[in-house]
Amino acid sequence: MQPSRQVVLAARPRGFPRLEDFAIRPVRLPDPADGQVLVTNLYMSVDPYMRGRMDDAPSYIPPFALGQPLEGGAIGEILESATAGLRPGDVVLSNFGWREHFLANANEVRRVERIAPLTAYLGVLGVPGMTAWVGLNLVDVRAGDRVFVSAAAGAVGSIAGQLAKLRGCRVVGSAGSGAKVKMLVEEFGFDAGFNYRDGDIAGQLAAAAPDGIDVYFDNVGGEHLEAALSAMRLHGRIVACGAISRYNEVDPPPGPRNLQLVIGKRLTIRGFILMDWLDKTPAFLREVGGLVSQGKLRTKETIVEGLDNAPRAFLDMLKGANVGKMLVKLA
Amino acid sequence: MQPSRQVVLAARPRGFPRLEDFAIRPVRLPDPADGQVLVTNLYMSVDPYMRGRMDDAPSYIPPFALGQPLEGGAIGEILESATAGLRPGDVVLSNFGWREHFLANANEVRRVERIAPLTAYLGVLGVPGMTAWVGLNLVDVRAGDRVFVSAAAGAVGSIAGQLAKLRGCRVVGSAGSGAKVKMLVEEFGFDAGFNYRDGDIAGQLAAAAPDGIDVYFDNVGGEHLEAALSAMRLHGRIVACGAISRYNEVDPPPGPRNLQLVIGKRLTIRGFILMDWLDKTPAFLREVGGLVSQGKLRTKETIVEGLDNAPRAFLDMLKGANVGKMLVKLA
Repeated sequence: MQPSRQVVLAARPRGFPRLEDFAIRPVRLPDPADGQVLVTNLYMSVDPYMRGRMDDAPSYIPPFALGQPLEGGAIGEILESATAGLRPGDVVLSNFGWREHFLANANEVRRVERIAPLTAYLGVLGVPGMTAWVGLNLVDVRAGDRVFVSAAAGAVGSIAGQLAKLRGCRVVGSAGSGAKVKMLVEEFGFDAGFNYRDGDIAGQLAAAAPDGIDVYFDNVGGEHLEAALSAMRLHGRIVACGAISRYNEVDPPPGPRNLQLVIGKRLTIRGFILMDWLDKTPAFLREVGGLVSQGKLRTKETIVEGLDNAPRAFLDMLKGANVGKMLVKLA
Repeated sequence: MQPSRQVVLAARPRGFPRLEDFAIRPVRLPDPADGQVLVTNLYMSVDPYMRGRMDDAPSYIPPFALGQPLEGGAIGEILESATAGLRPGDVVLSNFGWREHFLANANEVRRVERIAPLTAYLGVLGVPGMTAWVGLNLVDVRAGDRVFVSAAAGAVGSIAGQLAKLRGCRVVGSAGSGAKVKMLVEEFGFDAGFNYRDGDIAGQLAAAAPDGIDVYFDNVGGEHLEAALSAMRLHGRIVACGAISRYNEVDPPPGPRNLQLVIGKRLTIRGFILMDWLDKTPAFLREVGGLVSQGKLRTKETIVEGLDNAPRAFLDMLKGANVGKMLVKLA
């Protein structure tokens, strides 16, 4: 029996989540049955999409169940194995985050070939990195495109912007503090950036991208999307990747007043969910893994210690307190 | 010298246009110079997009000039010719509507091979018909798709819906009166329809398309678009063709509150303007001309008599008083 702890959903948040919506629960895990493994989590991910699963609403994945442990990306080490293909000490990815240990069937974990630091498998080589890569491919971002990325200092945005730069684009990013904007330009190599908390997003975008934009990589929705529509050039493309500005709204606010520009500017808007693209994982790891090995992608992480702090890490991430990928170190 | 009359833009409308925004002006046209033709217009078209050109705002075509004659699709007969390729009596299409006669260079008119009644060249075989055809192709509408068409009794919508039916789709349409809805089903062969003026567009759409929709052909924007987003199935496609509900708004109202569904449902929204697709005209005429010859497409027209009534015809069209293509008979 392995004593462990899990974070459960104590209440469904209404609006912005509170710490009381989460609870830490002690559990005792039995020994692995035949075909199972017992895993010690090393790091877990907190991601914007998790907010959606806390609502009891139909979506592309079922809602989290009340009183049950949350789920999410995690990287861990096998403690005990009752399956032939996995051995103690092997490092595995799973969707069993938000807990210190877990029991799983062998097919619910994926062993990692270590070509990068462990945390990279939850960041640039994991869901956020692949989300950035798929999003750019979805609208065929290519040399010469003028690209705008919102939430550009975040886990997805920072990779999307750098990949676009490597493809020969001019890249502008928005972020939530002056320090982050400085980082976009000085560390991630963006051509320009602005702090959306200074207001007038449309005006700041127009100043940072005076010739307009061909591609908008949208992680934010809301006022950012309206500004981007105004800045789009003819035949522009919008990747609808996320809408973090909306996830905590109790009553959804109205959409962009200028959506009808889609017609006259001949725009394309494409939404996507990474899970539809998992068959592209080998190509992603080849391309982006190669760039990581060559030191061509800068990554940032914000790491919080301990399961007790996981709910706060999630809340802080929703507020934009992180730089790059927000992770919780569990062991 | 040919005495004639033109409709000029007397004032830029603010909100819904008034008759006083238009004026009829007598003119005298000189004899055609070398390479020119003098044309008597037989029919002219009034179209929703013309409202946009009455505003002094940047768009995909320059605004109409104040005090100058309006422009638009027209079909006419050559009265005098000073060019080798065109002879009196030839029937030609042009963009010199809103006038009884006009002078033009030979390359500004296109001679029509008569395979259908003259008015068809401003309707099913003209801009509205080709708009419907290009829009369906743009999102690859195919057998089995559940399709929703707004403004379905109009010039574009009635063709879009019938073409989708001929491709093996289930088709639902909205229109602005009970009589029009009856026509959709009984004459155009739609599977279902509803009257948007009865309100609760989302509820009516859900009832008419209980399994949701794969394709939304949007001629309207506004509440229709919001309802369609809610009804979309996974991987659905939206053709952004027009937004007639918005053209007369002084201050653009907010957009759809549920636009973020584009992400979770993996939707694609594509805007287009017919002028980008004119190289497809031969393929369009082959396919849709063939269907017209075989009697497989029903067309409706609302015909108003005389240039004096052209401004009122335009206003009535914006209000949805027409069924099918709204035309003005000029001679």
